[in-house]
Amino acid sequence: MPLTPDIARLLDELKQLAAISAHPAPAVTRVLFSGEDLAARKWLLARAAEAGLESRADAVGNLFITLPGLDPELPPVATGSHTDAIPNAGAYDGTVGVLGGLEALRAIAASGETPRRSIELIMFTAEEPTRFGIGCLGSRLMAGSLTADEACQLRDSDDRSLEQLRPETCEGDLESVQLREGTYSAFVELHIEQGPELEKAGLDIGLVEKIAAPAAFRLRFTGSGGHAGAVLMPHRRDAFLAAAEVALAVEQAALDSSSPDTVGTTGVIEVKPGAINSIPCDALLEIDFRDTDLDARDAALASIRDQAEAICTRRGIELDWQWINSDPPATCDSGILSVAETHATALGFSHTRMISRAYHDSLFMARLCPTAMLFIPCREGWSHRPDEYASPEAIEKGATLLAHTLLDLANA
Amino acid sequence: MPLTPDIARLLDELKQLAAISAHPAPAVTRVLFSGEDLAARKWLLARAAEAGLESRADAVGNLFITLPGLDPELPPVATGSHTDAIPNAGAYDGTVGVLGGLEALRAIAASGETPRRSIELIMFTAEEPTRFGIGCLGSRLMAGSLTADEACQLRDSDDRSLEQLRPETCEGDLESVQLREGTYSAFVELHIEQGPELEKAGLDIGLVEKIAAPAAFRLRFTGSGGHAGAVLMPHRRDAFLAAAEVALAVEQAALDSSSPDTVGTTGVIEVKPGAINSIPCDALLEIDFRDTDLDARDAALASIRDQAEAICTRRGIELDWQWINSDPPATCDSGILSVAETHATALGFSHTRMISRAYHDSLFMARLCPTAMLFIPCREGWSHRPDEYASPEAIEKGATLLAHTLLDLANA
Repeated sequence: MPLTPDIARLLDELKQLAAISAHPAPAVTRVLFSGEDLAARKWLLARAAEAGLESRADAVGNLFITLPGLDPELPPVATGSHTDAIPNAGAYDGTVGVLGGLEALRAIAASGETPRRSIELIMFTAEEPTRFGIGCLGSRLMAGSLTADEACQLRDSDDRSLEQLRPETCEGDLESVQLREGTYSAFVELHIEQGPELEKAGLDIGLVEKIAAPAAFRLRFTGSGGHAGAVLMPHRRDAFLAAAEVALAVEQAALDSSSPDTVGTTGVIEVKPGAINSIPCDALLEIDFRDTDLDARDAALASIRDQAEAICTRRGIELDWQWINSDPPATCDSGILSVAETHATALGFSHTRMISRAYHDSLFMARLCPTAMLFIPCREGWSHRPDEYASPEAIEKGATLLAHTLLDLANA
Repeated sequence: MPLTPDIARLLDELKQLAAISAHPAPAVTRVLFSGEDLAARKWLLARAAEAGLESRADAVGNLFITLPGLDPELPPVATGSHTDAIPNAGAYDGTVGVLGGLEALRAIAASGETPRRSIELIMFTAEEPTRFGIGCLGSRLMAGSLTADEACQLRDSDDRSLEQLRPETCEGDLESVQLREGTYSAFVELHIEQGPELEKAGLDIGLVEKIAAPAAFRLRFTGSGGHAGAVLMPHRRDAFLAAAEVALAVEQAALDSSSPDTVGTTGVIEVKPGAINSIPCDALLEIDFRDTDLDARDAALASIRDQAEAICTRRGIELDWQWINSDPPATCDSGILSVAETHATALGFSHTRMISRAYHDSLFMARLCPTAMLFIPCREGWSHRPDEYASPEAIEKGATLLAHTLLDLANA
């Protein structure tokens, strides 16, 4: 039975969803539990209802949209991704997996064949770390990699807690979000590559074998302020200059790593008092560091820590090092990859095995059930920016392969 | 006739003024034309009215409070400073000069002696560069060092103009703010040192002979964003890392300068998109650089510019260098300094000649008339921070010396 996703509808829905944004097009901004995030959730549930699919939310706002199988007692197959977006991001990160997944469910339903297992589409809460500094909030709680107690400690930059911010539609206690292993028989996530390799190689599909191990940490530098004109250079304890040195050390540690996949990024910098004529007394950095090779990553992190301490000692700065997360890598399921590979070949889609340097909800789903990811190319590898772009052809091939793979897994 | 400022009243007024703040005590925050700035102006005018002194405002909000002399046709003597405060500053910067000046006027009036010339207390608008990035807005316009046209181009971070923001009490066109040379016969500003030298030497009074030459500039770095996990290190054009290198180069240039008084500070850093998992595509730095030696300062600035260009070329970053201001130093009037020195000795106040590394409205008043500054010690040299502090004794000595100096100059 051929599965034929309605690509025109899928593209139109991607457009509709992109329009729900705190910044004007082409930028997309949907921060967790902002008005836009809540509007996007409502919009997605309306699309599910239109398609005749049941949906529910858990206590952290993960949404579950179900296509029932012949035997609803069997662990379902799941797919999904996220719809939240960092400030001034693009229209394809996460959304291709959610709306491509919805289209796959509709295509399977339209085919007339009812699979053995149910298929669930999951929209995960806050894959992006924008609000609380921690990524994959929804899937992390589902996998038990973040406990409900730890989640209750999270605060946003306005010191508001997850408990305060989660809307009434998030029912139950945060403890109830965690799932037991075996809840799902398989999980497959469709996503744009967010890197340049597929486009460069002219390939349609990337079959992800491994997801890099992410770590993130927050550094607070406390020095001594004062008037920019009056305090002579040798008497200063400038918190920002220590932070600047550490940011450069992060870059150097990634460049010097024994693994070619090590990446380190200082994406958040805040300085107080933040006046042109005042010496910074406080600085905050948030740093993201990842690798497919856990040993290489952790060796680089240890070197960064040594250097940060040496820099701060030399400059008379107090350093507070706070881990946000430090996760192991995930290995994708070879069975799922074989199923996807077979279908890709049958459909005439060119493909390759690859690694994911970005992390995704799949990193945590892999702790609950056999998991794999399907990548499609995106222009220049650009992501997290307004000019992020995946072609209609790429999206169609991704959604089609996802539909065939899900149907096959649901009949297993 | 002995002049006896009422130190209890002066300290009480400093306390009242400090309470008009956007941040809770001990922090003081009064940004130009904020609710707090406007409230502080109103409060000051009420104190002047209580003392029976006439007051007026010019078109940029500089306030003038007058003690009439015997011959109102003669150019008056002036004193003054500012009441605006950067975020989380202290209670003494500027305010000691304004309220000490008010107390000096009241002490002269109370003495029963009417001086030959009128004495004007000036509260200058926005000595701090917080809102528009440029310091000494009021005195700069008075001296013609900033034209009305240039002032009309200024925008704050919300893109609002000076025209939009100045309140109705600022009467007339901005052109009318500029004064002709000789409007005043002399100007004397009382100020806390904002450096540690007087306290370290155990001295009461600093007689300022020279004010360092300030320069300020804004650098915009444009690179290329992307996902922190997916873009490998060699392919990055990270705007923040270029900015971090430039901030360190600014520090090094100040340290390497041939003049011991060179100071360079990067006080403002903003990065976009500002998310932990995104490579910074844009960065902005605001840098303050000063010296008493104009040649040493400009040589260091030229070296910073060369280095910034080399850093940005190497990193593939586009650099936009925008001057905010670049002012020559000011030399204080030896006649006024002699008058002040004679009184200091007579009053039994220990004193020294010194330079001001911070700039003040005196830098611009020196272009209009003979000018000098009187410094009093402040704890540890701290300024622009909540724990800024000058002792009651130091403030009393400063206000007393100011009163004697003004009366003497007003009888000349």
